Amino acid sequence: MPRLSIKISLDGGGKLGPGKIALLEAVDSEGSISAAGRKLGMSYRRAWDLIQDLNTVFGQPVLEVAIGGKQGGGAMLAPAGRRLIDLYRQIETTAYDLCADGLKDLENLAAR
Amino acid sequence: MPRLSIKISLDGGGKLGPGKIALLEAVDSEGSISAAGRKLGMSYRRAWDLIQDLNTVFGQPVLEVAIGGKQGGGAMLAPAGRRLIDLYRQIETTAYDLCADGLKDLENLAAR
Repeated sequence: MPRLSIKISLDGGGKLGPGKIALLEAVDSEGSISAAGRKLGMSYRRAWDLIQDLNTVFGQPVLEVAIGGKQGGGAMLAPAGRRLIDLYRQIETTAYDLCADGLKDLENLAAR
Repeated sequence: MPRLSIKISLDGGGKLGPGKIALLEAVDSEGSISAAGRKLGMSYRRAWDLIQDLNTVFGQPVLEVAIGGKQGGGAMLAPAGRRLIDLYRQIETTAYDLCADGLKDLENLAAR
């Protein structure tokens, strides 16, 4: 089956693509920016910069970050971060379905 | 308003993105591969290679090509080429609508 890669370019010049979405999802599953970065083979600095970029582009925090404590700081998705993932995955799924149907049409065209 | 860029990666390794679709559309409007290439600032060789790539990926000609004659050869879309453009633009439009709605939701989230 086909795979899709979608990049969204926003008015202000901000961009949203598979990398940032994967990072948000990794923070959700791993519970911190550093663990998310490790999972994706990304430096903490790089992960932090991407999150700051998202915060700036969307004018609100995409994560809720807890600082310090015995376990070190953790992070979880803020509502805007959760909404971003949902939005992106919805666009991707719908585009995928359309694409799969369209490719089936093309195969039928070839079979005639 | 946001812009979207969608790349489709097919099973066989073939790829379909904005460049190839723009080329097909330019052949449709300009009437030949060479004129389409000129319009897009692309060499004839490059344009020809992209078209051959599409033919191979989809297992059928995306263009109907007329060879020679007084005016030189011309080209027009074959059914598969037309279908590819329609498919891609449909995916793009649907993704765009979803994205615009989603971004509006995010703005509302920020305004709260």
